[in-house]
Amino acid sequence: MSRSEVVATYLVESYLPLEQAAEVIAGEQSTGTFVAVARETPELRDRFAARVVGIEPAASSGADLPGAIRPAGARRRSGLVRIAFGLDNFGPSLPNLLAAVAGNLFELRQLAGIRLVDLSLPDAFADRYPGPQYGVTGTRRLLNRPDGVLLGTIVKPSIGLPAEELRILVRELAEAGIDFIKDDELMGNPPHSPLADRVRVVSEELDKVAARTGRRPMYAFNITDDLDRMAANHDLVHAAGGTCVMVCINLIGLAGLAWLRERCALPIHGHRAMTGVFTRAPQLGIDFVAWSKLARLAGADHLHTNGLSNKFYETDDEVLRSITAVREPLLGGYQTLPVLSSGQTPGLAPETYRRTGTTDLLVLAGGGIHGHPDGPAAGVTALRAAWQSTTSGRNLTETAQQVPALQRALETFGPTSTSGANGGGRG
Amino acid sequence: MSRSEVVATYLVESYLPLEQAAEVIAGEQSTGTFVAVARETPELRDRFAARVVGIEPAASSGADLPGAIRPAGARRRSGLVRIAFGLDNFGPSLPNLLAAVAGNLFELRQLAGIRLVDLSLPDAFADRYPGPQYGVTGTRRLLNRPDGVLLGTIVKPSIGLPAEELRILVRELAEAGIDFIKDDELMGNPPHSPLADRVRVVSEELDKVAARTGRRPMYAFNITDDLDRMAANHDLVHAAGGTCVMVCINLIGLAGLAWLRERCALPIHGHRAMTGVFTRAPQLGIDFVAWSKLARLAGADHLHTNGLSNKFYETDDEVLRSITAVREPLLGGYQTLPVLSSGQTPGLAPETYRRTGTTDLLVLAGGGIHGHPDGPAAGVTALRAAWQSTTSGRNLTETAQQVPALQRALETFGPTSTSGANGGGRG
Repeated sequence: MSRSEVVATYLVESYLPLEQAAEVIAGEQSTGTFVAVARETPELRDRFAARVVGIEPAASSGADLPGAIRPAGARRRSGLVRIAFGLDNFGPSLPNLLAAVAGNLFELRQLAGIRLVDLSLPDAFADRYPGPQYGVTGTRRLLNRPDGVLLGTIVKPSIGLPAEELRILVRELAEAGIDFIKDDELMGNPPHSPLADRVRVVSEELDKVAARTGRRPMYAFNITDDLDRMAANHDLVHAAGGTCVMVCINLIGLAGLAWLRERCALPIHGHRAMTGVFTRAPQLGIDFVAWSKLARLAGADHLHTNGLSNKFYETDDEVLRSITAVREPLLGGYQTLPVLSSGQTPGLAPETYRRTGTTDLLVLAGGGIHGHPDGPAAGVTALRAAWQSTTSGRNLTETAQQVPALQRALETFGPTSTSGANGGGRG
Repeated sequence: MSRSEVVATYLVESYLPLEQAAEVIAGEQSTGTFVAVARETPELRDRFAARVVGIEPAASSGADLPGAIRPAGARRRSGLVRIAFGLDNFGPSLPNLLAAVAGNLFELRQLAGIRLVDLSLPDAFADRYPGPQYGVTGTRRLLNRPDGVLLGTIVKPSIGLPAEELRILVRELAEAGIDFIKDDELMGNPPHSPLADRVRVVSEELDKVAARTGRRPMYAFNITDDLDRMAANHDLVHAAGGTCVMVCINLIGLAGLAWLRERCALPIHGHRAMTGVFTRAPQLGIDFVAWSKLARLAGADHLHTNGLSNKFYETDDEVLRSITAVREPLLGGYQTLPVLSSGQTPGLAPETYRRTGTTDLLVLAGGGIHGHPDGPAAGVTALRAAWQSTTSGRNLTETAQQVPALQRALETFGPTSTSGANGGGRG
């Protein structure tokens, strides 16, 4: 029987045979219950039961989750388990899909580890969800940057900057040639700095710079809020001529993102705050690869992946896997721009370019620009010089001899990496 | 200086001194960055910096999270850390609150364990969020059950039941005197069983039973879906005379729940599918105590807590803590009904009543009713008899001698507990 299916891949760890553990998941997440019940016919099970379609051995993630059933003498098994769910069980709806592939199963005692690592979705999801409205191409068009790595920054200090200080900062960054500026994820629409005030001063400054230089940086206003307020925030930004909005995807929910997408006129910059809850415990949760597919379906034009040598817990290999995942076509499209951030400095350009092999990146430096000893404008100059040098195949140290701002940046932040060297705090 | 504050309590584990680890969190989540930046004045820090207001030792959670910084020779510390955030940093907005108290911090390398365990919120949140519209009192009023434990069940099989079979099942359950029936969380608005069809047959049957008996059970239709569709689903249920809607809170997001609450005319039955991702790794995530406060603020009238001896990973002590948390007044109100489910059977009534000390509970038995050897109606009779016996101070075994359905239930499901005895699967 051919049917439209979702295939979910899990890391499963159990003291039961993996076949048995996999069947428990398939049962819990479709037709089963803990006892036989009236009306559960063989025909019903044939049509609606999830099917285990693959099991292969995997490396152990480490510690057991609490409550795991451990029969005496049983050994621990780890495997990648693929389970197919008929689309007819839930239809092409992200929230209802999640109930099946990422609902109660995390609480099962038969599992000592359970992590959703990937999802394969049928075309019906593409019919329901339009996905990124701008993506890489649309973002480049709005920025008038047809090629090259896109460079951006985050307003620092994260919160508390008065509107008139923000004005001066934005002017300085824009005049120095930055492509992109974003609010910090901590800065929404707080009493001390209403979004309307920020939109006003930022728009005024960007308009002035655009008139002088012909180039208008994109500013991602953080419109994250309760949903009706978020929609109003979007309208405010759009009416003022803004060209980007930012949301913290996990804090408004994937459904909230999809809802915004339906009424959004601007690129959506997708911040990943709180993703660590899903990803950091190796034996539990939802891997970035699976999560990013859902975020792209829901409409994220830009998606934070972290950057190399970031100040957070992820290794460079994990970051590269995330960047690759975001760049991989999904259902034939859903082109989303990876956003590299956290501890990013000019010295990281060569290694980042070497390992990603692409310029379709938005690289954000927060401290790496604002912490430049000669100020943010020098920070922008240094970052731009580093990337231009790198993508032209030149040597960074030699370029630095011609560009004093880059020289100072390399001296300040280190030539290749900040990882492990910084004392923590924001990127 | 007196200011309106949010106080978040974390379990923090680190190889750094706890004071230092706590300051890293406070910095990351408010004004700090990894280097000193221009415009970060002492005045700005005074006004906006989060403050560490308490550190006390705690038991270790176990394994380290990946990426934790571990200086040579350093020992591991565990503590409960309280951090105060000025409300002015984000305003009384759930999504923006989360950015501060549950954003990037989970990814910090300075932390070997990080879990948000509790939240204390200022009154401004009560002004913004009306919370449960019905709660315990309103639910009892709709059910015409001023006292006693409320008894319910979940439609089984979970998915795939044809509408006309659902009709017969609902009739049988309603005639047997059930208070509450809910869709399974896996059953939304799928192609094979459109919500409109379910609403039609269920409403017809409940109307008939109400006409005969004067008592109309509450049916919680699962309206979980993309948000505009969810709102339309709600309207469909309401227009048909339905008296409850169910949503999977994590799958529509807390912001989605608050959005629904603003346009909802019915009690909201809050399912907790996917909460295991937040709770099951002891060294990471968001504890149910903190999560449930946010869900109640956002408007959940009923909230799933699991039940004693449940088939999932939580211990009875953890479940009791969740029930207590949901029943505790929040900002002077936010009365939400705890929903006990998963592996619930008549034999659990005495222990559940002894340990919770309340009848303000909604106890759901899925397999424990549908798996009764004499059918679901006998399952309802047995569960009702067990709870009436228990709350009247009678002995369950003696009651069973007068009630054959209860006797059969105790023989089938065991006298006190199913925990560990069942082979897994749904509750």
